[in-house]
Amino acid sequence: MADKRAVLIVVDGMGDRPLIDHDYKTPLEYANTPNMDRLAKGGLVGLLDPISPGVRPGSDVANLALFGYDPAKYYTGRGPLEALGAGIDLGPNDIAFRVNFATVDDDFRVEDRRAGRIRKGASKLAKSVSEIKVESVPGIRTIFKPTVDHRAVLVLRGEKLSKNVTDTDPLEEGLKLVISRATDGSEEAKRTSAAVNEFVKRSHEALREHPLNQERANDGEKPANIILTRGAGTRPSLPSFKSMFDLRGACISGTALVKGIASAASIDVIDVRGATGSIKTDYEAKAKAVIEGAKDKNFVVVHVKAPDIAGHDADFKGKVRALEEVDTLVGHVIDEVDIGANYVALTSDHATPVGYGFHTGDPVPVVIGGPDVPASRVLKLSEASASRGNLGRIRGLDLMPILTDLMGRSRLYGS
Amino acid sequence: MADKRAVLIVVDGMGDRPLIDHDYKTPLEYANTPNMDRLAKGGLVGLLDPISPGVRPGSDVANLALFGYDPAKYYTGRGPLEALGAGIDLGPNDIAFRVNFATVDDDFRVEDRRAGRIRKGASKLAKSVSEIKVESVPGIRTIFKPTVDHRAVLVLRGEKLSKNVTDTDPLEEGLKLVISRATDGSEEAKRTSAAVNEFVKRSHEALREHPLNQERANDGEKPANIILTRGAGTRPSLPSFKSMFDLRGACISGTALVKGIASAASIDVIDVRGATGSIKTDYEAKAKAVIEGAKDKNFVVVHVKAPDIAGHDADFKGKVRALEEVDTLVGHVIDEVDIGANYVALTSDHATPVGYGFHTGDPVPVVIGGPDVPASRVLKLSEASASRGNLGRIRGLDLMPILTDLMGRSRLYGS
Repeated sequence: MADKRAVLIVVDGMGDRPLIDHDYKTPLEYANTPNMDRLAKGGLVGLLDPISPGVRPGSDVANLALFGYDPAKYYTGRGPLEALGAGIDLGPNDIAFRVNFATVDDDFRVEDRRAGRIRKGASKLAKSVSEIKVESVPGIRTIFKPTVDHRAVLVLRGEKLSKNVTDTDPLEEGLKLVISRATDGSEEAKRTSAAVNEFVKRSHEALREHPLNQERANDGEKPANIILTRGAGTRPSLPSFKSMFDLRGACISGTALVKGIASAASIDVIDVRGATGSIKTDYEAKAKAVIEGAKDKNFVVVHVKAPDIAGHDADFKGKVRALEEVDTLVGHVIDEVDIGANYVALTSDHATPVGYGFHTGDPVPVVIGGPDVPASRVLKLSEASASRGNLGRIRGLDLMPILTDLMGRSRLYGS
Repeated sequence: MADKRAVLIVVDGMGDRPLIDHDYKTPLEYANTPNMDRLAKGGLVGLLDPISPGVRPGSDVANLALFGYDPAKYYTGRGPLEALGAGIDLGPNDIAFRVNFATVDDDFRVEDRRAGRIRKGASKLAKSVSEIKVESVPGIRTIFKPTVDHRAVLVLRGEKLSKNVTDTDPLEEGLKLVISRATDGSEEAKRTSAAVNEFVKRSHEALREHPLNQERANDGEKPANIILTRGAGTRPSLPSFKSMFDLRGACISGTALVKGIASAASIDVIDVRGATGSIKTDYEAKAKAVIEGAKDKNFVVVHVKAPDIAGHDADFKGKVRALEEVDTLVGHVIDEVDIGANYVALTSDHATPVGYGFHTGDPVPVVIGGPDVPASRVLKLSEASASRGNLGRIRGLDLMPILTDLMGRSRLYGS
C-alpha cells in the first residue's frame, strides 16, 4: 500500500446561521462553491462540534482540538501559542500574551479593539512599543513582536512570574480598559500584573502622539493608541504530531496562532509569500504550497483566515466572497492531490455568524473526500446539508483519529 | 440585544418504541400533536441520550443532566432530591429516602409497588406513618412527608448515619420485600439499615389495619399496607443555576423530584394550583404559569409527568391522550412566549415504552425552536423523524450549553 497523504483545510469561522435578510440562507448556502460541493458529494459529510455541543470556543482551543490535541489536557493559554507562531523561542518561565493594537478614548474607554484592523504602519508603531521598559518590577525583560494586522505578541521574561493574571482587554467595545490583577493572590502573579499594567500604560504614552497616528487621524482613521493584553500563559508541552499520529505534518497558515500550534506540535510550518492571514491572501500561492508540501509530507494542514474576519466584521458579502475564494483553493487542492488515492478534508474551527460578529457554539460542516469513502450524495455543502450528511455529528477531537484511520495509519486499541 | 428568554418543556417518559399492535407506531406517532409538529418543523430536531447511548436512567439523574448538572459529579441519591422538593430543609447529616405506599401480601411479597397508585386518603395514612418512632436505634428522629399519589419522603435525622444502605423496595412486583443492609460494613450504615428495617416493619403494623385500607378493601382496591424505601442519600451540593449558566431560572412541576432538583440548584419553584404531577393535571394553569414565569425570569423549565405514568401503566391510549394534552400546553407556550425572539425547547427525561412499563435506555426526541435556528422541515415530531433531524444526536448534558449559546449567554472557552 502506497503512503497515503491527506490535506486538511480549516476554513476559519466558516459556520453561520440562516439570515432573515438573505432568504434564510447562510453565507455558505449563498456562496458559489462548486469545489467544496464536489468534495461533499463524493465524500463523508457531517457536523463537527469543535469542543462539544453548544460550547463556544476560542480559536486556540478549537484549533488544538482539530490538530488532535485535547485542550483540556494541553491548553495553557493563547499567548504562548501566538508567541511560538511569531517565532519567539519561549523559555519555561516566560509568560506570553496575545496583544492587540487598539483605540481608546481619553477616558480609556475601548473604542475599537483592533484599531480599525490597522494594516499599514503597524511595524513602525511596534518599534516604539518594543522600546518600552518596565521599571516598577525589577528583573523583567519585555519582548514585543507584531504578527498580522492589529495582532502582536508580548512576552515577559524573568524570574518569579505567573500566568495567573487577568486580561486588560475588556473583550467588548465601549467598555473601559481593565486593570490586570492576580487571580491567585501569589507574589508572582502580583509582580506579573503590575508589569502588565505598567506596560499597557507606557504603550499609551508611546503611541498616542506617534507620527503614524497623526497620519491616521489626517486620513480619518482611528489611532492605534494602546496595547491590550489577553490570554496569558506559559509554553505548552505537546507530544509531537509524529508521535501522536505517525504522520509527517506540515502547516500553511498566515496566522500566528495556528503556526504556533503547529510549532508546539513539531509540525513544519511552510511560509508562503502572500499567505497573509488577512482578508487579502493569495490563495493561488497557498494552493501551490499545499501541493508542494504534500510531496514530502503526508499530512498538510492549511488554515484560511478570511471568512472569520468577514464574520467578525458582520460582512455578509465579504464572507460570501471569502468562501468563494477559498473554494478556488479547494479546487486546486482536489485536482492536484489525486483524491482517488489521497484524502482531502475540510472543516472549520468554529462558527462566526455575520449576524453576531463573534464566535458561537454551533456545530460546523465537515467533509472528508478520498478513496473508499462512502458518498454522501449531498449536492451543495452547507450547514443544513451537513446536518443530514452521512458522517453524523462528531467532535473536533474525533477528526484526526478518523483521518489517520482512513489513511491506514491508526494504531489498534486493545489487542 | 434584548434579554432572550427560553422555556424548556420536559415531557416525562415521552419516548417509546414502535408497537406491533398499533401499526408499528409509537404513542407519539399516533398522537395528534400539531403544536409540537409546528415547533419541530421550524426548529432544530434530533435525538437526545439522557445520559449516554443505551444507559437506562432513573428520573433523578436524567433530570439533573437536562438541568445541566453532570450526575457523575453531583448525584447523591434520589431521596434527598425528593425531600428538598417536598420542602424538607435537609441538614448535612440527614439521610433521605424516596418511599412508596405499596401493597404486600401476608408473606411480604410485593403485589403492587404503588398500592394501585393510591390518590385519595394518602394523607390520612401518612398521619399514622408520621407517628412511627424508631426504638431499636437510639438518637434517631424520623420525618415522613407524602408528596404525590403513592409517593412520599422519609428522612432519618441524627448522629452516626450513613447513606450506604440498600433499598427495601425490590423494584419489581412479585418479589419479596428486601431487608436493608449496610453496603460498606460501617457502624453508621449498620445503624441506618437497622432503623430503616424497623421503620418499614412498623409502617406495616400501622397501616395494615388502618380504617382507610378497610374502605379500600370494600371498594375492591389494593391496601396501601407498607412503606417501601429506596434511593438513600445525603443533601447534594450543586452550584447555583445562575452561576452555571448566568440565567434567572424558574421551574414548574408537580413532582417532588423535579422541584427538589430546582431547589438544590437555587432555581425558583413556582407552585401551580392544579399542576399535580399526576395523570390529571391542569395544563391550562400550567401554561399560564409558564407564561407568567417567563416575564421576570429568562429560563423556565416546565415538567409534565402524565405520559410517564401512562408508560409505567402500559396504557397506550392513556399515553396518546397525555401527549395530546401536553401538546395543548406546548401550543399556549409557543403562542405566548414569542418564538420569533425567544426559544422553546422540548424533550423528555427518558423513554417509558408502554410495551415495557419501565424506563429504557432509548434516545428521546429533542426540539429547539426560536430565532436564527435552522429549520428541520420535519413534518411530524416522532422518535423516527427525530432520528433524521438536523440536530443529530446529543446528550442530556449538551442541552443547556446549546440553549445558553443560542440565547447569547455562553462563556467563551479558550481565548
